[in-house]
Amino acid sequence: MIELRIGLEGVAVAESEISCVNGEKGELIYRGYWAEEAVKDHGFEAVVHLLWHGEFPTSDQLSAFKRDLANRRVLPDYVKTIIKSLPKETTPMAALRTAISSLTVPGESWPPTQTQAMDILAKAPTIIAYHYRVQQGKEPIEPDTSLDHIANYLYMLHGESPRASFARALETYCMLSMDHDMNASTFTSRVVTATEADIVSAITAAIGALIGPLHGGAPSKVDDMLDEIGTKDNAEPWLREQLESGKRLMGFGHRVYKTYDPRAAALKVVTQQFSDESPLFELSLYVEEVAIRLLAEYKPGRNLYPNLEFWAAGVMRTIDMPRELYTPTFCLSRIAGWSAHVMEQAANNRLIRPSVVYVGKRPETPPPSHV
Amino acid sequence: MIELRIGLEGVAVAESEISCVNGEKGELIYRGYWAEEAVKDHGFEAVVHLLWHGEFPTSDQLSAFKRDLANRRVLPDYVKTIIKSLPKETTPMAALRTAISSLTVPGESWPPTQTQAMDILAKAPTIIAYHYRVQQGKEPIEPDTSLDHIANYLYMLHGESPRASFARALETYCMLSMDHDMNASTFTSRVVTATEADIVSAITAAIGALIGPLHGGAPSKVDDMLDEIGTKDNAEPWLREQLESGKRLMGFGHRVYKTYDPRAAALKVVTQQFSDESPLFELSLYVEEVAIRLLAEYKPGRNLYPNLEFWAAGVMRTIDMPRELYTPTFCLSRIAGWSAHVMEQAANNRLIRPSVVYVGKRPETPPPSHV
Repeated sequence: MIELRIGLEGVAVAESEISCVNGEKGELIYRGYWAEEAVKDHGFEAVVHLLWHGEFPTSDQLSAFKRDLANRRVLPDYVKTIIKSLPKETTPMAALRTAISSLTVPGESWPPTQTQAMDILAKAPTIIAYHYRVQQGKEPIEPDTSLDHIANYLYMLHGESPRASFARALETYCMLSMDHDMNASTFTSRVVTATEADIVSAITAAIGALIGPLHGGAPSKVDDMLDEIGTKDNAEPWLREQLESGKRLMGFGHRVYKTYDPRAAALKVVTQQFSDESPLFELSLYVEEVAIRLLAEYKPGRNLYPNLEFWAAGVMRTIDMPRELYTPTFCLSRIAGWSAHVMEQAANNRLIRPSVVYVGKRPETPPPSHV
Repeated sequence: MIELRIGLEGVAVAESEISCVNGEKGELIYRGYWAEEAVKDHGFEAVVHLLWHGEFPTSDQLSAFKRDLANRRVLPDYVKTIIKSLPKETTPMAALRTAISSLTVPGESWPPTQTQAMDILAKAPTIIAYHYRVQQGKEPIEPDTSLDHIANYLYMLHGESPRASFARALETYCMLSMDHDMNASTFTSRVVTATEADIVSAITAAIGALIGPLHGGAPSKVDDMLDEIGTKDNAEPWLREQLESGKRLMGFGHRVYKTYDPRAAALKVVTQQFSDESPLFELSLYVEEVAIRLLAEYKPGRNLYPNLEFWAAGVMRTIDMPRELYTPTFCLSRIAGWSAHVMEQAANNRLIRPSVVYVGKRPETPPPSHV
């Protein structure tokens, strides 16, 4: 008996121990911790360790993990050649997809290993920064192994050691973006892994899914919106006009969350720390308040609140992240989550092969005989 | 209410008009035609047209379609550079994945268009042949626009115009491999498309899924098996020993088909035409007969028969296709089917976002408040 479930809403494709979203309550769990609390006293590498191993590392484990990751950052020359060969119009996400696809990770192709995951995770920021600087006509910057993962990413982008508070703000964003149960890209990585394909194939495929704006979003559009609104006075008329003409408000609403997204809440606090120097902070705060009120008025019962993108844009603006790198930066974090899912899927694997309801024409002749 | 459906068996994720498999009866429909009959009086381009448009082309349409496809075969220089940059150990499928990912197709990224699909479809054989010849240390061969799609593929591999009967044998295989309802790679292409990602992302992702041996198979292992068996006398003892020790027989059994795979049946007929010159043909025929008998004995009620791979290997051996190119050749055909599904998904799109059953630890503290 075939059951039609377009969109697969409410169909669970796996049992997982990695993360859990409760959209009604606005809760996100990473391996037994509330995500917002898990990121408070830890850095990027420790949270990756948590997602991959189910527990935070001891201090010895953390040092070894950081060292291993840092030592894998350098790109082989052929990957640099590939990045430099790409046409000018290649987007940062397409460049990342192609460069990751070109990687030859250590070991056998199956099953996927932590070493392989680490190799991809380590190189992703280098690829993004390398392509960014090449596109800008600037000299690419080699990684600095003395810096942590996210600080080094900022260093490779800008060529100078980042302010510690900026690196920490971005790190908080990255840790909160790492995993979000069975979203479309994570699901893609598991479907590919379930064929016993290698982890490079799985992560490459997931990057493709994140490229789609219905999933990876269009985070810099929140900035565009704030730019257009410009002043507090203009907020309510501008937002009303959008809603009157049936348009979506960028950065509000989520398929899963029917209340305040806990990640957005945490990033609002992060952005608030820089309220003095972040010129759009006051405006963001005001737009948020008006938008929540108007959304309740125009779309009653829909429970639309700011999502991750709204306050992620706040963090990104604060630290001066180029707008075209918002999605790649999301991606370099999510690779940690995908890798956790790839390893979990492989550990207890089964081919994911759904069905289809055929609604096309049927032949008018009897089927050919093969006897 | 969340329903756990690991593997998604029996869960239909779309309504589709493209192809339909009936595994119990051994039937495959392409757009209202029995697949074996659709390929009889048509060539590769005509069947692509059927899958994309729902009908065979008129003769004018076919000429235009062939010309358009042929004119898109040449690789931009940067793609050649990328292929030549890949490390020696890069597999043909990984090279194809990376080179396809690097393509910049004409037009907007959304929605996917037939022109974009044609661009990818046209270049896939060139990429495979280019990488193959580079790996062999041979000079790559530019496409010949006077040849049809599959004949040109053989020409680019070997540097000489193929025997017409060989080109037709391979073309029959390729047409029969184009689409097979909601298999894992086709599903991957639809999941990625459903995020409104571009067609390059979708096809790149699907290639990753086809790399997995549980889906793309290990077609050259049928050859390895026949090599090991060697003689008719050895067939029954060898097959018995495999089954006694609990091993699978390569080229037998399929998740969907519980009877003779109609594609295998058609390819058996194709191979039979070359029985005089295909040294392993008699042995294949005998191994098939013994294997069907022994599988019924060792695995009663399972209904295990030769699958596409078993007789695909017959065709590939006949035309001297290098073993490492069996899966890429499958892939260049399946790109046509993926593209049909990408366009169908986009025409009536909805994000595919399943759920997960969280079986991990839960926090011991109450959730942080965000009010």
